Amino acid sequence: MSEAPAGARRRAEVVGLGLIGTSVAWGLRRAGWFVTGSDLRAERAARAEELGAIDAIGEDLDAELAIVATPVAAIAEVSQRLLERGGRPNFVVTDVGGVKGELVSALGHPRFVGGHPMAGSEQEGPDGADPELFHGATWVLTPTAATDEAAYATVRQLVSVLGAEVVALAPVHHDEMVAVVSHVPHLTAATLMGLAAGASVEHASLLRLSAGGFRDMTRVAAGDPAIWPDIFRDNASAVLVALDGLIARLGEARRIVAEQDRTALVELLEEAKSARRNLPPRVPRAEDVVECRIPVPDRPGALAEVTTLLGELGVNVFDVEIAHSAESEGGVLVLTIARSAAELARKALAGRGYRAAIWGLS
Amino acid sequence: MSEAPAGARRRAEVVGLGLIGTSVAWGLRRAGWFVTGSDLRAERAARAEELGAIDAIGEDLDAELAIVATPVAAIAEVSQRLLERGGRPNFVVTDVGGVKGELVSALGHPRFVGGHPMAGSEQEGPDGADPELFHGATWVLTPTAATDEAAYATVRQLVSVLGAEVVALAPVHHDEMVAVVSHVPHLTAATLMGLAAGASVEHASLLRLSAGGFRDMTRVAAGDPAIWPDIFRDNASAVLVALDGLIARLGEARRIVAEQDRTALVELLEEAKSARRNLPPRVPRAEDVVECRIPVPDRPGALAEVTTLLGELGVNVFDVEIAHSAESEGGVLVLTIARSAAELARKALAGRGYRAAIWGLS
Repeated sequence: MSEAPAGARRRAEVVGLGLIGTSVAWGLRRAGWFVTGSDLRAERAARAEELGAIDAIGEDLDAELAIVATPVAAIAEVSQRLLERGGRPNFVVTDVGGVKGELVSALGHPRFVGGHPMAGSEQEGPDGADPELFHGATWVLTPTAATDEAAYATVRQLVSVLGAEVVALAPVHHDEMVAVVSHVPHLTAATLMGLAAGASVEHASLLRLSAGGFRDMTRVAAGDPAIWPDIFRDNASAVLVALDGLIARLGEARRIVAEQDRTALVELLEEAKSARRNLPPRVPRAEDVVECRIPVPDRPGALAEVTTLLGELGVNVFDVEIAHSAESEGGVLVLTIARSAAELARKALAGRGYRAAIWGLS
Repeated sequence: MSEAPAGARRRAEVVGLGLIGTSVAWGLRRAGWFVTGSDLRAERAARAEELGAIDAIGEDLDAELAIVATPVAAIAEVSQRLLERGGRPNFVVTDVGGVKGELVSALGHPRFVGGHPMAGSEQEGPDGADPELFHGATWVLTPTAATDEAAYATVRQLVSVLGAEVVALAPVHHDEMVAVVSHVPHLTAATLMGLAAGASVEHASLLRLSAGGFRDMTRVAAGDPAIWPDIFRDNASAVLVALDGLIARLGEARRIVAEQDRTALVELLEEAKSARRNLPPRVPRAEDVVECRIPVPDRPGALAEVTTLLGELGVNVFDVEIAHSAESEGGVLVLTIARSAAELARKALAGRGYRAAIWGLS
């Protein structure tokens, strides 16, 4: 860490030292900033200091920027207090909550910039923190017409220092998008799981029929419910619109099945297939990577063999997924790798008997 | 392969030499059976013979058993023809189609036993076949009151020779279960993908907001639609019941969000979490395995390090999944390992800095 004299270091304050807040603080401190932090739970602040994620516990009236990383329900009040507190002129406040519309309009302040890093972890608290958590992540910022330009530039710098990429969206548009790609899918996963559990109440073992596709679809339902009630409260209107859209589309799917409308069924599935295959990959720019799909048997060793082989060749694996077909036990290993490494990887894998298909080489 | 004289070998005939049919033939032949096979596409039969999956192309009037592995739409007619054909007394016919109710009642024959192996692959045709495809898989058989006991015993033996485990279900019950755990989830994945694609038609890049949970949920939608129209035709009634159940439950979820019924929301999510965590693991008996959950950074090398470390220790990994949280870039590696190896694995992983949580040790 570069320990420049405190006077020369940029200064930030983090309120709420859970996994996200501590990771933000730690990443900034690593980049040379002077960072203070606080948490209603004193042991969290102490732990963050012990980890070296913050320079000191407490407020900092000389900070140029505060990041509010409290539970969603407290963000508005904490942000309001910070904006009204004396301190540096042009002091900026941003947050990391998952819902933006109401919050941003309730605060309505030119030096509050809403934010939402699309990163996280199954773990909790400062012990789960990682100064590199945001490397390569998408970080949504929600400036409005009223947002001060210098304030927005400061928050953009924060995101960039942490290694993430800014996507700027109107607050309401952000909320609509996360309702569609996160909140409603989560509710749907829980609902599908409930339907299956309810259907087989007398025959729990019949859930052995559930193969990889069902497991993939319901996996998020295994997570901790704690964060969801506030999200569904704050984003209720966008969630209701998306839910209505989903229910209407399922009603149309019902009609298609009931009337045996084969043309419409194939169209529905083909459109979904095309959209799914065109999902941008999660890590680098879409045009720089390809998907390398390798059928692997359900046998120990195959996964290790493939990943170490690529490692030895110096092929960076940006992402890895196991794709199960709807009714299959075996799987397909889906590796996101650099386009430039695609041929090398394919040949090396062929040499070991793996038939890799490269997607995205168009 | 044990090449006993043809007269001493048990004899089977496979009709339809796609991936499943060729795998069945190949597995039986490996186990010492004499196997003939046929396919309307002559090149498939030739390829299966070339691979060594069948002894000869064509019919076998001395076979004790025929396995019908044609497309779903042809199963009834092909099976009927086989049952009416002269040949061995007590000749048995079984199939591998994904829908059973109508088929079994339409044939209504004591020596037809419906079957559905829960195994497959993304690949197609004899070149994707694997004589070990069914090792450890669940294979549903659907005997009825009219089923001949000797015929049922013969098909049970077939499944056992192929290394799979029989689950016997009434045909209608099978169809209800696969509607819930496979057919309706598939339709839902396609519908969610369509909703997201429709919502962001002006801003395709916004799908970058889709994190691991959404990707997991929509992955099956990337598959080939070709098999689905026949499935949705043959299993329409069970699919409609399950779809109605899903739509009703989503309607209740809508009410919960609209009325901010926090208690009901937490209950819905907690029940789903508990049901998802209790899904039986896919490979060995539930009581013999545990889940080893290891948070891993999105960084090349971690996956290879973990899997090779376990390999070196002789820890068998029965299954591997990458669990993404709903809004996260990093992931959790979920390994299904033998209960007896849990402590060894945890300690070895801790020695390399991985914090593994063991689930199912209760």
